[in-house]
Amino acid sequence: MMAMQYLGVDIGGTKIAVVLGDENATILAAERFPTARFPRPEDALDEIERLARKLLEQAGMRIEDIERIGISCGGPLDSRRGMVLSPPNLPGWDEVPIRDILSRKFGRPAVLENDANAAAVAEWLFGAGRGTRHMVFLTCSTGMGGGLILDGRLYRGFRDLAGETGHIRLTDDGPVGYGKAGSFEGWASGMGIAAQTGRSAEEVGRDALAGDPAAIVVIARAGEMLGRGIAILCDLLNPELVVCGTMAIHLGDLLLEPARRVVRREALDPCPIVPGALGSDIGYKAALAIAK
Amino acid sequence: MMAMQYLGVDIGGTKIAVVLGDENATILAAERFPTARFPRPEDALDEIERLARKLLEQAGMRIEDIERIGISCGGPLDSRRGMVLSPPNLPGWDEVPIRDILSRKFGRPAVLENDANAAAVAEWLFGAGRGTRHMVFLTCSTGMGGGLILDGRLYRGFRDLAGETGHIRLTDDGPVGYGKAGSFEGWASGMGIAAQTGRSAEEVGRDALAGDPAAIVVIARAGEMLGRGIAILCDLLNPELVVCGTMAIHLGDLLLEPARRVVRREALDPCPIVPGALGSDIGYKAALAIAK
Repeated sequence: MMAMQYLGVDIGGTKIAVVLGDENATILAAERFPTARFPRPEDALDEIERLARKLLEQAGMRIEDIERIGISCGGPLDSRRGMVLSPPNLPGWDEVPIRDILSRKFGRPAVLENDANAAAVAEWLFGAGRGTRHMVFLTCSTGMGGGLILDGRLYRGFRDLAGETGHIRLTDDGPVGYGKAGSFEGWASGMGIAAQTGRSAEEVGRDALAGDPAAIVVIARAGEMLGRGIAILCDLLNPELVVCGTMAIHLGDLLLEPARRVVRREALDPCPIVPGALGSDIGYKAALAIAK
Repeated sequence: MMAMQYLGVDIGGTKIAVVLGDENATILAAERFPTARFPRPEDALDEIERLARKLLEQAGMRIEDIERIGISCGGPLDSRRGMVLSPPNLPGWDEVPIRDILSRKFGRPAVLENDANAAAVAEWLFGAGRGTRHMVFLTCSTGMGGGLILDGRLYRGFRDLAGETGHIRLTDDGPVGYGKAGSFEGWASGMGIAAQTGRSAEEVGRDALAGDPAAIVVIARAGEMLGRGIAILCDLLNPELVVCGTMAIHLGDLLLEPARRVVRREALDPCPIVPGALGSDIGYKAALAIAK
């Protein structure tokens, strides 16, 4: 018997990807285009349809072979109504009922989820969090997004605004992130490291990996503040695992050991903190994971 | 048809109560005794049995009329195994399989829950949180315990240690609570107010209600730090309501208005903050609520 097939649509500020995959989030084929190419969402959605039909044709499949369509997009959005609500990284995408539009175009059911939640589901089902019931995912990328798997399911909160980890306050004052000085995002995200150093987080990270002591200190401090945020998550949610994305994958223990040290000191019931397992494929797998 | 009947057992550091109630947590009768009277848990459990049988007899009921027994107790405990694990306020209660002991004594099913979780369930089912699906309860009493109702059910975490709100850090340094300087409990609990003022929180609260400006300032600062903790809860859990216990019930807006002001400024999606509705009966109703 053939595995179930899914379509994933990953909508980011830089690029939009369409991906064909199976129930194990194995990627069969993918296409992408720069978000800026189509300033109007209608045109971008037409292009998504065109690329999806092309992928299906090349794979010798019909749209009826697709079980469901997963759409991952930056927030804010309304997952219940399947509506994208003016994300800051998608100018012009105001109140777009994307779930129903894509569902109608293809005649298949679709689901919409914010990108951090979708990545959390992907790491939980297919990555570092497999087999857990209580897992926190932190994007640790340009921003500090989060996704909460609680009691074996994604927790979204009252208005799809749960897991907004980057916005919580860690200190009275400090670097600005998510519009707040001293926030988790200000202290421990790529943007925060850039704000603290005047250099890009990639650059600082590269130097730290090459052994540069000043860069190592910067990454270690970001790690300590990452630990401070994770300690709060541990005391409130008592997860069995925290999975950290992008920066933790690139920097490993340079970032995570300082975090673990702080969590051991600060949290009532410290849990393991590991890098994500899905690497650069995570956007694709995230869109497929939520379709499942 | 008669309403379902439940037995509640509320085990605290000061007193132990046994209560007979119905499915609406209406209290039919209750008995209590000082915890210190029986230093050995076996003897306390015998006394609980004696009082429960007395309550039943006086009510003209048989133990078979009891649907289930709810046991509320200070943590740490293991709700899955029904085991009390050395709570700091119950010296001598080490690894007591209280659920199975009481279940065997009465021949009825029993459940064990920590007191803050049980109070959260009581406010959710019978108090200020009725009709919500995403509610946070904060004890705001001597300590700062918490209970999380997420997606319409109590969330306990991996090892029954979710909702340990009092332990989260609000500032780099500050008054000590839950063994940590600058913690939520240090800043905003009764113990914290006592540590900050050298006077009992009851006294300070009474003076504030009587209009004493210095006392009002102390309560307002506790309220602001309460708001700071609630803002973190809002950003992480996006609840639709936060219910605050003891101190909020006594002090009302003196404590809650400063909290609301901070939450409006600090949280992405601020939610209403209200005092609990169950007052001094909450311990009884908590034990009954978890039996349901």
